[in-house]
Formats: sequence, C-alpha cells, structure tokens
Amino acid sequence: MLLPGLLSGTKGVLSDLMELWFTENQTNDLKLSCRITRTLHREKTEFQDLAVVDTVEYGRMLVLDGAIQTTVKDEFVYHEMIAHVPMLAHPAPEKVLVIGGGDGGTVREILKHPGVREVTLVEIDRRVIEVSRDLLPETSCGLGDPRVNIRIEDGIKYVKETRRAYDVIIVDSSDPIGPAVGLFSYDFYKAVFEALADDGMFVAQTESPFLNQNLIRQVYADISKAFPVAKLYLAPVPTYPGGLWSFTAGSKVYDPAEPRDVGEKRPEDLETRYYTREVHRAAFVLPPFVAELLRP
Amino acid sequence: MLLPGLLSGTKGVLSDLMELWFTENQTNDLKLSCRITRTLHREKTEFQDLAVVDTVEYGRMLVLDGAIQTTVKDEFVYHEMIAHVPMLAHPAPEKVLVIGGGDGGTVREILKHPGVREVTLVEIDRRVIEVSRDLLPETSCGLGDPRVNIRIEDGIKYVKETRRAYDVIIVDSSDPIGPAVGLFSYDFYKAVFEALADDGMFVAQTESPFLNQNLIRQVYADISKAFPVAKLYLAPVPTYPGGLWSFTAGSKVYDPAEPRDVGEKRPEDLETRYYTREVHRAAFVLPPFVAELLRP
Repeated sequence: MLLPGLLSGTKGVLSDLMELWFTENQTNDLKLSCRITRTLHREKTEFQDLAVVDTVEYGRMLVLDGAIQTTVKDEFVYHEMIAHVPMLAHPAPEKVLVIGGGDGGTVREILKHPGVREVTLVEIDRRVIEVSRDLLPETSCGLGDPRVNIRIEDGIKYVKETRRAYDVIIVDSSDPIGPAVGLFSYDFYKAVFEALADDGMFVAQTESPFLNQNLIRQVYADISKAFPVAKLYLAPVPTYPGGLWSFTAGSKVYDPAEPRDVGEKRPEDLETRYYTREVHRAAFVLPPFVAELLRP
Repeated sequence: MLLPGLLSGTKGVLSDLMELWFTENQTNDLKLSCRITRTLHREKTEFQDLAVVDTVEYGRMLVLDGAIQTTVKDEFVYHEMIAHVPMLAHPAPEKVLVIGGGDGGTVREILKHPGVREVTLVEIDRRVIEVSRDLLPETSCGLGDPRVNIRIEDGIKYVKETRRAYDVIIVDSSDPIGPAVGLFSYDFYKAVFEALADDGMFVAQTESPFLNQNLIRQVYADISKAFPVAKLYLAPVPTYPGGLWSFTAGSKVYDPAEPRDVGEKRPEDLETRYYTREVHRAAFVLPPFVAELLRP
C-alpha cells in the first residue's frame, strides 16, 4: 500500500500518471466506472467481498460483491426515502426493525424521528458494520445511539421468530443474489406481516424499473398477496444501475403514500436533502411504464 | 466491416469470443460502458463526431462527440417530458420551434397534439437528421410529416432573426460544449423571449442536478432574468450522466407546472409511457438539494 505522502506532489495534488478505476458490472451488458484515489479496505468476509474505496466523483464508497452499496455523495436520497416514507406514513412508529443496512444510513434517518424508542438492526455480516463504523462515519453515525440494538444474525430467521413486535420494518438489502436472495420471496413477506404490529408497515428496496422489471413485477405481486395495501414508489440513485430506484411498501392499515401529521411529528421538522412532504407524495406518482408492471 | 452473417453461429447468436464496448466519459471521473454488437455508422461531420451503435442493454444509440444522445429503450422519458410539459401547460400551442433535436424524437411527441399546425426544426448538422432518418426510424418517424419544416442552420441565428412567432420553443440540445455552447447563455434566452408569442413558453434541457450544479444555478438565474416565470423540473434518463435530468422552463404568462385542459386537448388522450397529468405536476416537486440551487 502506498503512503498518502508518496502520492502527492508539492501541492498535495495527486498526479495523473496513474489512473485507478473501480468498475461495477451493473448488468452483463452495462458497466459504471468511477475514478478512485485509493482502496481503503478490501476483504473476503464470511459472506461476501467487502471493499471501501475513495472515488473522485461520489466520495467514499462501500462495495459488496462488486456492487456499489452506498456513496457519501448520493446516499442521502436512498436512505431518506427508504426511512422517512414509512416513518411518516405510519402515525406513531416507536419500534422499528431494519434488515440489512449495516452501513447505518437507514438507522441514522430513523433516529431523526423523536418518537422512536427502539431500532433493531439485524445485519448478517458483522464486518459490514465494523468497517462502516471505521471508514464511513457520516453514514454510520447513528449506530452507537442508545436506542439502537444491533444483532448479527440472519434477518430471515429473526423475522420468522418475531410476532407482532414492530411498527415499521425496513428491508435495506443488497441485490437478490448472494446473502440477500431470501429477502425477495413471498414466504419472507408473509413472515414480515406476522412480525409487524396490527397497524404496521414495511418497505423494501426493490431494484431498477428500467433494468429489473421482472423482479419488480414478482415482488409487487408477492407483497400484494401478503398485505392488504401494497404500493411502489421511486427515487433517483445515480450510482445504482439505471439511475432510478424502486421501493415497495406493504401495509396493514395506513396508506404508505400519505405523510401523516400526528402531534409534534411533521415532515417539515426533519433535516433532509431529498425528502419533503411533497416529495413523499410525488414519489408514488408512477409513469405508465412502471404502473403497468404492477397490473395483475 | 464484418457482415452480419459471419458474426452468427448456427443459431444466429453472436459468440462471446469478441467483446465490444462503447464507453462514454460522463465526467473526468465517471464512465458508462455499454456492450455493443456493432457500429452501424461513424463519421466526422462538419460539426461533430457522429456515431450510431447497437447496444445490448438500451438498443440502438445515437452518439455525438462521444456523448450518448438518445437510445431506443430510454428515449421516451426525455422526449415526452421535454415536449408534453410545455405543450400541455400552454393552452393552445399551434406553432412550435425545436432547436437541435435532429433525431426527431421531440418532433414526434409534439405531433401527437392535434392542435399543432406547424413545427419548425432548426438543426445545425444536416447529418444528424439524415443518419437518424436512416438508422433510428422509431425516433425520427415524424420528420416527414407535412406539418414539419426542417431548416439546416444555426439555431441561435434563427432565433435572433425571429419575432413573436412561436407559441412554444423547445431547446433540445447536446451538452454545453461544441456546437451547443451558445444555447446556454442569457443573450440566447433573451432572444428566445423575443421569438415567442405574447403568451409563449420555452423549455431547455439543462443537464444533471447531481453533476452539473453550477450550470443549473447559472441557467436558472439567466432564464429567471429573461422571463417573468421560470421553473425547473426533473425526469430520470438512465443513459445520461447521473441518471436524473433537469429541464428549465421560461414562460411569459402560463405556469409551466400546470397541465391545462382546453377544448379537446387533455393529457389523458396522449399515448405515452412516461408522461401523465400527475407525472407532469410531480416532476416540478423539487427535493431540497435541487431547490437550493435555484435560490438567488
């Protein structure tokens, strides 16, 4: 490994003599490449290939099995939208479960809600949490909060053993290959239903409406079968394949598309860079090419 | 050039032995690569490097000076949103001017409005039109319509010589380098104002809110100075840098964010895959990180 000092010229600027690039194979036929200044960490964990690199365009980046998980520059969109939509559509979420999400970004957003009493984070890979706490402090900063209970175990097993315990469950998983594959199944959604309180709500990240249409179709059909209310919403994530991302919500009672003001809890009190009350509603307005994926 | 027959095995499927990729340098530090099956056309025109390639992920693609302009698979979002927003926010557009847009996609969408009497397309590079008509029939299909008047000349010069002539003007340009640079200036927006009828409206593509923030800030300030009403809206375009794209509208009278039903003209009558009445309104709902770019 080169020492930072050896990489700099007299003005502390890296030379152009050496080009370093990280390339994600987004599909068989599509690649995104980011210029990096260095690799900060790389290991094979029990579950996956884990890396942290410093990119020039998007800042520090967490990569699992070659797929970009989160970057300092664009993570706010994904984490705000996966967290605040269910947290504000539910009138009073106190107990929240996050499956996956070991980088801590979703937990950080959940903790912005003063009514939250307990956040359980169930991450299968201890090293994702440890490396994120070490190298991604802006993202993982909430993981030491006393309201956060971290469990290193299989999220599917944890959910199957849980009954009527959570107001909101968020599935912040990697792609449906490797350790996350079981999180995209009807059996899992049924178990999530059982793990939720009687008026509970859940959201999962459900991939790209341009590049993963069959997956979205299947997941939406499965969540619709498991929950009385199912809705899909969209948000842009530049570093994810196709640049536009989908989330699917399943709910027992409340409409996920409608933010609710209850007591002191108002969308306007959140410090956010993407989410607002109006953005919440607009995210559920689906263009016809997406809406038609959801027709039975 | 290889003959298609020589590329196929017994089942007509290309072998994996040869990998062909087209790579766009989206910024100095970011690249998007698309697997291609072949290059259909490549030339140096009077103005730019022009190519058409067949990509596996996004279908046939037009490339100018190395930058992706349009692909068969995702062009509907860009063309519907640059055309139908002003066409429906204006109550009765009859005369429409398109600057750039030689691939014909914007003209194709404009012609879906039965009230349109005349569309003038001013494209500086004759070869973009000729090659698009030859190789991108789905996109260029409207260019032969009797209502369409094609002029091969400099759009800036044409606009400066025009007075109070158009109901809607659409600037469907390439990036602000090369031939399009003059289309991103206060002087040009002033000339567009003069070329519009007394209740006219104009829209320009204005790059990525993630990657071109200084440009968006400057363009919005300039359009706000030239027009009484200025508004920015967003739409996802997977093959453009950052995946989310911005459009800025300048208007003399009407609110660009509000589709208008006048007589038989209703958003619901349009055949579209991205645009709807609700999508129109939602596109103007800006997340805080974009809204703050527009503050004076």
